[in-house]
Amino acid sequence: MSGGPLEGIRVIDLSSVVVGPVATQFLADYGADVIKVEPPEGDLLRKLGGSSPSGDLSAKFLHFNRNKRSVVLDLKTEPAREALRGLCSKADVVVVNMRGGALERAGLSAEALRADHPRLIHCWLAGFGQSGRYADKPAYDTIIQGASGVSGAMERLHGEPCYAPVLMADHTVGLIAVQMILMALYRREKTGLGDAIQVPMFENMAAFMLTEHMALRSFDPPLGGTGDPRILDPRNRPLPTRDGHICLSANTDAQTFAFFDAIGKPEMKADPRFCSVAARFENVQAYFEFRLGALRERTTAEWLDIFDRASVPAMPYHTLETLLDDPHLRDVGLLERVAHPSEGAIWNIGLPNRLASGARHDYLPPPRRGEHTHEVLAQAGLDADAIARLCTLNRLDASDRN
Amino acid sequence: MSGGPLEGIRVIDLSSVVVGPVATQFLADYGADVIKVEPPEGDLLRKLGGSSPSGDLSAKFLHFNRNKRSVVLDLKTEPAREALRGLCSKADVVVVNMRGGALERAGLSAEALRADHPRLIHCWLAGFGQSGRYADKPAYDTIIQGASGVSGAMERLHGEPCYAPVLMADHTVGLIAVQMILMALYRREKTGLGDAIQVPMFENMAAFMLTEHMALRSFDPPLGGTGDPRILDPRNRPLPTRDGHICLSANTDAQTFAFFDAIGKPEMKADPRFCSVAARFENVQAYFEFRLGALRERTTAEWLDIFDRASVPAMPYHTLETLLDDPHLRDVGLLERVAHPSEGAIWNIGLPNRLASGARHDYLPPPRRGEHTHEVLAQAGLDADAIARLCTLNRLDASDRN
Repeated sequence: MSGGPLEGIRVIDLSSVVVGPVATQFLADYGADVIKVEPPEGDLLRKLGGSSPSGDLSAKFLHFNRNKRSVVLDLKTEPAREALRGLCSKADVVVVNMRGGALERAGLSAEALRADHPRLIHCWLAGFGQSGRYADKPAYDTIIQGASGVSGAMERLHGEPCYAPVLMADHTVGLIAVQMILMALYRREKTGLGDAIQVPMFENMAAFMLTEHMALRSFDPPLGGTGDPRILDPRNRPLPTRDGHICLSANTDAQTFAFFDAIGKPEMKADPRFCSVAARFENVQAYFEFRLGALRERTTAEWLDIFDRASVPAMPYHTLETLLDDPHLRDVGLLERVAHPSEGAIWNIGLPNRLASGARHDYLPPPRRGEHTHEVLAQAGLDADAIARLCTLNRLDASDRN
Repeated sequence: MSGGPLEGIRVIDLSSVVVGPVATQFLADYGADVIKVEPPEGDLLRKLGGSSPSGDLSAKFLHFNRNKRSVVLDLKTEPAREALRGLCSKADVVVVNMRGGALERAGLSAEALRADHPRLIHCWLAGFGQSGRYADKPAYDTIIQGASGVSGAMERLHGEPCYAPVLMADHTVGLIAVQMILMALYRREKTGLGDAIQVPMFENMAAFMLTEHMALRSFDPPLGGTGDPRILDPRNRPLPTRDGHICLSANTDAQTFAFFDAIGKPEMKADPRFCSVAARFENVQAYFEFRLGALRERTTAEWLDIFDRASVPAMPYHTLETLLDDPHLRDVGLLERVAHPSEGAIWNIGLPNRLASGARHDYLPPPRRGEHTHEVLAQAGLDADAIARLCTLNRLDASDRN
């Protein structure tokens, strides 16, 4: 038994790449038995996420697929589809991220799977809501970023449309899907009934961006245009110091006045442009411009010390490389060196959150492609011959069979 | 009754600005009774989020606080603290985002609140894990972005450290907090026991960034440096067309080859740099460079039509302004014009997700400061005199008293 709040929950995960695996990763980390169903060639992320010792478990794949079991099924064949339906019939949650037509054709729609299994929670990570004109379009992280305003916000900041430097649409919508699944699990405990969930990426990211940036167009008639001027101001950035950059946040009057005092400019507190939250909002460009030039005389370490003593919120700036050496992350043990059966030693990213009731006890290394095909199908009641026939259909060679 | 899967759940929300309100917004949207406890001056976001007709309900505040009730309590006074403890003793969930010391002093730690109320779920949105050296530091969105690698990734993309053009740390960690709360609610149905949850912003964002960008340093010995070269490449952006930009995603061989065919360059399919997922990963700069110049001859509409027919995933690029006019978002009715008692007509951002079991039936407009103080305290059993005394302590004037 895995331990953790979701112990005893079985998830059949038919998703691939990032949005679905993010969602099922959370469920797996807290104790669910997540069975990742892959096509014979494997999840695209195994290679798309970069090189690896075996060539089949990229770093990004590792970080989104631990604590899961991998089953290879070639869903182009009927025996594989039948085996899959068998797995789904004993599952608590099924996660899919194909398009509507493909879902229907494969017999994997909520209607098909829940007809005889009303306790099942079916979570469909769709690209787009089914009542809109984009319903059947394909969706991927970058095109959702570009269509939902992420790139629009980047353009306001940088002058040219570009994407955020993370898989922001995939990663964010994956987190949102977890909420929907957990809410359905909660409700099932009360009512005995499962649910059919649709999580469209485009609408979720549009809503995410609009909560932040609909701004003055939220009122009718509008009080102005879109965009939060504080967040879209290019002067709002880590501040240059004598030897690098420092990150500073001074929003309330108390913090801002402490900042003015700490840098030896107490007279700024009386400046009508900067003397209140509303005044600084109105004069945000001047305020940010001032901050940008204010800290060049001392080192980052000196300023951190000064701001700590003055209760001005500040932190060191980290590159992606220096982040790995952050002393606080070492204190809390975020990165854990573990042995992987095929990839040698890898760094697992531990769970950031603490729950008095605990997470799972064991750790399953990210699975090799089809590593648990035999085990899972045998547990599902298939006999050795049936499993052998499926593996032949899967075109798995002996080395893939574990 | 509100309807929705979380009907009957009462949440006392002591958080402010964004990270906590994001979390409780989700709970409220699905039927929980969220009581937002504000200091006499109100949540900072009421003004920090921009101007509004009343001056006290900025657009950003509106979008993160609908379906909640607002109670003003001046927690510097003992009668207010006592009233708050009374509210917490009847709650299912308490959400806090102050620092550890302040939490202890106010008697709002998990230990204090759960001692006589083991069914309570206490969710603490901390800045940092308590076993690390940053435990007592203050945390805000920008400084967490700067410290956790968000700005580091932006620097790799743009050459200079800057922040993402959204409250990425607040918004993302708020979504993660919802997961933890819902998981605890699920488990409570099974065991009868609540939970104590700690959600540190810094570790969560560091983990978010490292899953994407630890990359070749995930292996020990490392196979290379940090950073996903596909995502951090500045050439990976919406592609210029004759009259604007288009967003394109072609990752699999099938999509990429269809793209080469669609633009009249079938010979590219045989180019050894571009003929497989692994080859394009190795030659990602050349591949992106090629794409960037490939679409300048036709308009966005022409390319969208061509790519639709060729099954190449593509979408129009939206600015923050044009996003509001997207026809699919109109089809699905994402934006709903509603009347607000103090702000006139406002645009509510509807729920993107569908759940067969439904969301809440009613809609509560984002509350005026302290709008429900009388109502909530009376429901909690306080008599008219006690409520009047608290309101005097709160320094609420008559117009604030609803």
